[in-house]
Amino acid sequence: MKYWNARLKKMSEYVPGEQPENLSEFIKLNTNENPFPPPASVTEAMRKACDESIRRYPSPTSLSAREAFAKEHALGVENVMLGNGSDEIFTLLFRGFIEPKGLAAFPYPSYSLYYTLAEANGIKYEKLPLTASLDVNLDEYLKKPYDLVIIGNPNNPTGRGVEVKAIRAFLGKFAGLLVVDEAYVDFYGETAIGLVADFDNIIVTRSLSKSCSLAGMRVGFAAASKEIIQGLLKLKDSYNIDRVAEAAARAAILDRKGVAYNISMLRSNKEYLEERLADMDFEVVPSKANFLFVRHPSVPAADLFEQLKERKILVRYFTGPVQGEYVRITVGTMMEIKTLVKELGAIVTA
Amino acid sequence: MKYWNARLKKMSEYVPGEQPENLSEFIKLNTNENPFPPPASVTEAMRKACDESIRRYPSPTSLSAREAFAKEHALGVENVMLGNGSDEIFTLLFRGFIEPKGLAAFPYPSYSLYYTLAEANGIKYEKLPLTASLDVNLDEYLKKPYDLVIIGNPNNPTGRGVEVKAIRAFLGKFAGLLVVDEAYVDFYGETAIGLVADFDNIIVTRSLSKSCSLAGMRVGFAAASKEIIQGLLKLKDSYNIDRVAEAAARAAILDRKGVAYNISMLRSNKEYLEERLADMDFEVVPSKANFLFVRHPSVPAADLFEQLKERKILVRYFTGPVQGEYVRITVGTMMEIKTLVKELGAIVTA
Repeated sequence: MKYWNARLKKMSEYVPGEQPENLSEFIKLNTNENPFPPPASVTEAMRKACDESIRRYPSPTSLSAREAFAKEHALGVENVMLGNGSDEIFTLLFRGFIEPKGLAAFPYPSYSLYYTLAEANGIKYEKLPLTASLDVNLDEYLKKPYDLVIIGNPNNPTGRGVEVKAIRAFLGKFAGLLVVDEAYVDFYGETAIGLVADFDNIIVTRSLSKSCSLAGMRVGFAAASKEIIQGLLKLKDSYNIDRVAEAAARAAILDRKGVAYNISMLRSNKEYLEERLADMDFEVVPSKANFLFVRHPSVPAADLFEQLKERKILVRYFTGPVQGEYVRITVGTMMEIKTLVKELGAIVTA
Repeated sequence: MKYWNARLKKMSEYVPGEQPENLSEFIKLNTNENPFPPPASVTEAMRKACDESIRRYPSPTSLSAREAFAKEHALGVENVMLGNGSDEIFTLLFRGFIEPKGLAAFPYPSYSLYYTLAEANGIKYEKLPLTASLDVNLDEYLKKPYDLVIIGNPNNPTGRGVEVKAIRAFLGKFAGLLVVDEAYVDFYGETAIGLVADFDNIIVTRSLSKSCSLAGMRVGFAAASKEIIQGLLKLKDSYNIDRVAEAAARAAILDRKGVAYNISMLRSNKEYLEERLADMDFEVVPSKANFLFVRHPSVPAADLFEQLKERKILVRYFTGPVQGEYVRITVGTMMEIKTLVKELGAIVTA
């Protein structure tokens, strides 16, 4: 590691969910991908973008997609930016919006990328435990003068949501910067994006990976005050979104009906899976997202994970307090769910 | 700028070449895009990638494109990584491969992103002037113990190249990290990529934006020792390259014949443009790239730039010592060149 600097040497790595090379052999319910393809209008717009104009640089700020997103949410274009996945937006936030001496706070369990990025940038942070019902209690984030707070809403991996009126009340008392990670919000419905007009210390992030079935295209959005967006644009690489990704993003925003149809199918699959899991004595955390956080009274989560993997079904298992007791299962197609239920039945009655 | 940290406030911004919204009204010779579309095999592979698999995350390390690149250059997969443009690779290099107290050196004039990124990361750097013939003299980079040196080869905006044997000799005496930015190397032919096998302190970066006509897809490569690549992979976001970009990259590498055909057409256009410019008394710096760095004895560069812009032709003009005397003209199609030559003729004889 001769040429690595001290920061790189010290850095821990975010480990994404397993992406097996022999994907087709697995039922993959470990990374919260959408089981349904994107609306046809989206893949058509993408194919159309694969033309000779590809020799040109893209719009530096992905203007056509920014405009579509801004219009949908009654924001100005200056309140919106695109990232190469919302991951890029988080990376930029840690680089430009907290001083090295600052203090951050995140829920635990939550999306571990927050902790990884804080460490990579040498930022001190606290993990605030969830309540007994696995909820975020925003009052806990007022007990110290935190400079940066990120909450997932709904939170990953628990699937629990905070009400927007609670976020509004919190912002009235909070002096730091609040990031609301809405990667899963389309399955929930309660968005904090309306608060951007009223508060200059909120950043709402979005992802097209989940509800819009575009994990393969890497597009996220940030909505915030003009000043914050200006800073994010200054920090990002010149051309962070390619032409096909911009076309996909714009088309997905414009075809809300197609996306809504996928979401409604997913909701009914989720209900079915919840019922079957309850039949097998699983404890299912009530979820606002496209995944279920579940545990079983007689089979430890690590065993569930391993035994499902042997049966070619991938779910997500995180080690550590609280979360180590559960597995996170992405809601799949009905066929995937039926296979999962059958195999889980065999495992828990063995 | 209430929530910006000190670094963001201080940061200067890299300004990319102008991308006018009313693009179709302009002849655009300002950002070194390829005037020819990519080979049909590339756009076909891209369209094929726009299918239902887009709902899945991409390969975290863009494996299929890494393999193709590694095979082409007789390297191991572990010696190669992909970036969201070579810009992302430069961003990562400054974050992980030089200590905050380190000292960097770059040629001047060169790609101004090097200076911008050094500043953004609080890294001290020196700009080493080119020789009278606008060449990089590598001996100058041995006079101090620089931790990081980046040279463009060919260099942008001059178009001048360093021989690989000079780079090899330099590496034998240099203890820091050398980055050879080969964004334009396919027009030149002299690649330093073979040195990766012999030296652990060289990083060669590549771009598909220029020779492969894929500026719109944002793909760059880094070739280096296994340790350096490991560090870059650790620093990057989990999924930095989308599925369509990976497919485009792989296809462009596999269709070297199609890319070579475009390069040969471009070379003959370049020769034609050089001759016409010489006819009009322009001084043309002999170029190894797909652009020409030129000045005229009687019309200042700033005037050339402005008057061409009025005539709906965009070329690149950089202010500052040396480079402020020249304009940089991207080699376009024959039709674009003929219009350019006509307008330049009118300007210099006015």
